[in-house]
Formats: sequence, structure tokens, C-alpha cells
Amino acid sequence: MADPIESSAPKARSSGLRDLASQPQLLSINTATVRAQGNLEDIFNACAEQGISAVSPWRDQVKDIGLKRASALVASLGLQLSGYCRGGMFTAADAAGLEAARDDNRRAVDEACEMGAPCLVLVVGGLPGALEAKPAHRDIAAARLQVIEGIQDLLGYASSVGMPLAIEPLHPMYAADRACINTLEQALDVCELLDPSGQWLGVAVDAYHVWWDPKVHQQIARAGAARIKAFHVCDWLVPTTDLLLDRGMMGDGVIELQALRASVEAAGYQGIVEVEIFSQNNWWKRPMQEVLHTCVERFKAVV
Amino acid sequence: MADPIESSAPKARSSGLRDLASQPQLLSINTATVRAQGNLEDIFNACAEQGISAVSPWRDQVKDIGLKRASALVASLGLQLSGYCRGGMFTAADAAGLEAARDDNRRAVDEACEMGAPCLVLVVGGLPGALEAKPAHRDIAAARLQVIEGIQDLLGYASSVGMPLAIEPLHPMYAADRACINTLEQALDVCELLDPSGQWLGVAVDAYHVWWDPKVHQQIARAGAARIKAFHVCDWLVPTTDLLLDRGMMGDGVIELQALRASVEAAGYQGIVEVEIFSQNNWWKRPMQEVLHTCVERFKAVV
Repeated sequence: MADPIESSAPKARSSGLRDLASQPQLLSINTATVRAQGNLEDIFNACAEQGISAVSPWRDQVKDIGLKRASALVASLGLQLSGYCRGGMFTAADAAGLEAARDDNRRAVDEACEMGAPCLVLVVGGLPGALEAKPAHRDIAAARLQVIEGIQDLLGYASSVGMPLAIEPLHPMYAADRACINTLEQALDVCELLDPSGQWLGVAVDAYHVWWDPKVHQQIARAGAARIKAFHVCDWLVPTTDLLLDRGMMGDGVIELQALRASVEAAGYQGIVEVEIFSQNNWWKRPMQEVLHTCVERFKAVV
Repeated sequence: MADPIESSAPKARSSGLRDLASQPQLLSINTATVRAQGNLEDIFNACAEQGISAVSPWRDQVKDIGLKRASALVASLGLQLSGYCRGGMFTAADAAGLEAARDDNRRAVDEACEMGAPCLVLVVGGLPGALEAKPAHRDIAAARLQVIEGIQDLLGYASSVGMPLAIEPLHPMYAADRACINTLEQALDVCELLDPSGQWLGVAVDAYHVWWDPKVHQQIARAGAARIKAFHVCDWLVPTTDLLLDRGMMGDGVIELQALRASVEAAGYQGIVEVEIFSQNNWWKRPMQEVLHTCVERFKAVV
């Protein structure tokens, strides 16, 4: 791989990090990474062909081929899940909307159970209506309160059926329309409020969303092994041309991925590393096998 | 003004906020807001015609008409400055780059003095080379250290000539290429480290950059009157279509501007409110007088 940017990799390499090159089973592909190139069956089969043993599917992709078919494929191909994407979107402009969100989140938990996921990832929602460019109000504190109440409610159900929840703090550029939990610190405050044990409520640490944060290493240490339910990677490109769909392949951007992995592992995380790339003008336009192969190579070399 | 979004304005209005509608002298126009429509002389004249008595010019616009001409115009039109844009960009890949940044920042301080600005705004820089899409490395902690050293050095010079510096924490989406100081908390940590007094080093609170932060009100209170050297407004649009050039006019987006102003004023800030909008596809395409008139109207109605 060509890497024109001076890397901090050697520093990280010598600090007791797990050797990913020899442990391919630690790689998971978030199925959004190749969502443009095929349906979930295509993606699962392609992963198996590439020797990729773990995946993290999206609900709409599962729905597309049917939940039973999706879970049967996971079993027959011997795939593991690193998460299920996604629950959340807890905010709403009225009681009916809150009720609908509540019901939909319980279904998401049920699906995660059926698929054998280790956690349901939560993208918590922003200002109600903002994603449809029709924000109902500007009161982000109120939205944040709805999110806490929504997670609290879901937590009761999720723990009763044995499904951990992982709050994914999203980059602050998504605060308005996708998630009003925007830092690890904020997410961990919610975790400590609602589940002191850490057994059922934790965080998904996605490098893309948290790399910029001057407190990221401190907060990863605070989270500890119990709270870190998932670790996602991709890269931040310079320039970034789209707020949502211009994520980079690991190694093509400026995130110190190994430094983040070092912190996550130092905190006790021994789980899977999930690759999640939304890339409208680059990776979504390439053949699926090329993208997956590149993910494998970069996983070994730069993550 | 059409405002389809339920506003939290009445709440703020009743809480002892300054009445902007009766104090037009509290409005400043950052000259980037109409940079596409004319040179600095055109902009200064148009502001004066609209009864706008304060401005915040950019260095490249000043250079364009000449520093002496610019400062003479400020005097002859009776304009006040709310700031001078900008110093910073302290990071560099080598010693020569650091030296050049040091020299350039001293010139920026001198220009700010000549123009009669109350402070020099600092956009501190990101990873060296990233703005040119050629990042020299990924070590954001090292970049942050360069920034602190750069500010420390400049502070000695700036205080010797009587020019306060205002660190502007930029939105985290600019961490890679424009500024690696990304929260008020982080900026205030630097302020307290380098200037315990608060006389010469403070912050520029720009609503666009900080509105998403769950700790923004807490950190504005922490800053207090001495540290808040400037207060900037515009709005966050949903959707936002460009990371840099799609800022909204106040009232067209989702930022609770009055809630932020309430916090800033509760912290003791009694200064000018500066409007700064970069809007490639909307406001930069409209006639200058229309844009300025809209700024005045929105300043009275929704800020």
C-alpha cells in the first residue's frame, strides 16, 4: 500500500498491540461498506470467499432478503456478528412518534437476537424532523433528554432478552440530524447514569466519529473493557467532500488508527475490529471483491 | 421573517438579554459574509449605508486594497472593529515553516493594531499540509503542541503591543485541516495555561463551531467576561451540503442563538455580535445590500 503520510505505526506496533495480520478472525465488515454492490446474500458470500469471518449487517439490508434467510446464511457460512446496525432514532416531535420509535427499537433488539449479534448499535437521533430537513424545534437539550429516556426504556427490554446496547457517539457534524450524542464523554455519562454495571449499556467507538476529540484517549480509558462493545474503523480524508458519504479506506486519511486501537486494547478490549466505510464516489463504485480485498490488506497493514 | 421552526426565543427574551433591536451598534459584519460581492471598500461603504457601524475584516481583503487605505476608510466612515481575521495556522512540517508562521502572525498583530481591532482572531491550524491535501503526518497531539508553542510565542509579542488574542475553537469537522483546537473546553485549557490573567488571551465563541457541544453552556460560564473576546453568529442548516461554505443566515438553521447569547451575556460579555456567513450557493450569490439588510433584520429578530 502506498502511504505518503508519515505514520505513527511503528510506535504503536511496539507497544503490545495485538497482531492483526495473524488474526484474520478479528476483522469484521460492516455491510454498508459494500451496500451499493449487492444484497446481503451477495455480501455474506463474498466475505466468506475472502476469508472474512465476521460481519455487521444493517437492518434494511436484512429486511431486503428476509430475517430468516439472513440468519440462516450467517449460520451456514459460519459467520460471526460484530454488531447489528442499528437501533436508536429515539427523538420525536410527538407522543405517537416516540411510541413508534419505542416499538421499532424493540423489533431491532429482537432482530439482533435472531441474528446472533453481540450488541445492538444505537444511533440515537438528532432534532426530530431534521433528517427530513424539517426540524420540529431547535431544543437540543430536549432531544438529548428524549434520547436518555428512550435508551432507559429500551434497556429494560434489551437486558430482559440478553442483548447489550452500544451507544455510538457520532461526529458533531451529525448533531442536528442523526445523533445528539457526540462525544465519548457524553455517551459514557449516559451509560453511567442508566447502567452502572456496564453489562447491558456501553459504547461503540468509531474512529471516524471520535478521532478529533482531545479527550478521546482519556475517555476510552474511562470506558474500560466492559463498556466498549464495538470498535469501528475507516479514515478521515483531506479534503472531505461530503458530510456523510466520503469516508476513507484505512490508511488513506489522517486518523491515527493504531493509536486509537492501542488505547482501546489498553482499556481491555479484545474484540473484533469492524470496518465501516460509506463512500459514494469511490469505494461504492468499485467491485465488491476489490473493496473487501482492500479492507483485508489494510486491516493487516495499517489498522 | 418566515421561521417554520418552533423557537426557544421567548424563553431567552424574558431572561434579561440585551435588546438588540434597539442597539444596532452591537451588530458587526464579518467581511467574509459578502466577500464575493465586492472589495473591502465596497463592503465598508455598504455597511455604512445600512447603518452598520462595526466590521471584522479579513487580512486578504485588507491586503487587496492596502492596509493604509483600509484603516483610513475605517476612520473616515466611523466604523468600529469587532475583531481582525485572522492569525494562527501555527503548525508546520519543519522549522522554516514554523518560522514563517511566527513572522506572519506578528505581521497580523501589527495589522490588527493599525486597523484598531479589539482582538486578533486565531484559527490555529490543523495537521501541517492537510489544507493542501498533503498532510505531512497524522500526529494531532504533536500539532496541538505546536499550536500551544505558537500561541505562547505570539502572546509575548501581542501583549507587548497591546493586542489581545482570541482562540477560535473550530468545529471538529475542521480538526484535520484548519484548527486542531475544537472545543471551548480545550481552548480554555490553553488560555489558562498560557495567560492566567485572561487579559491577553481568550476565545472567540462562534455559534457555528460550538452549538453542538453538550458542554457549551458550562464552558461559556467558565470562560467568563475576561476570556470572551468575540461572539460570532450564523446558523447550521439541515441539510448542510458543504463542510466549509454552506453556513446559514441566522434563523434559517437549528442553532439556538438566543440561548447561546444568553449564556455569553450571563458570563458578562457586553460586546458586539458579529455575523460571519460563508455561503457559496446562496448568500454569496445575492446582492450585497440584500445580504446586509437581511443580516440587520435577522440580528434584530432572531439573534
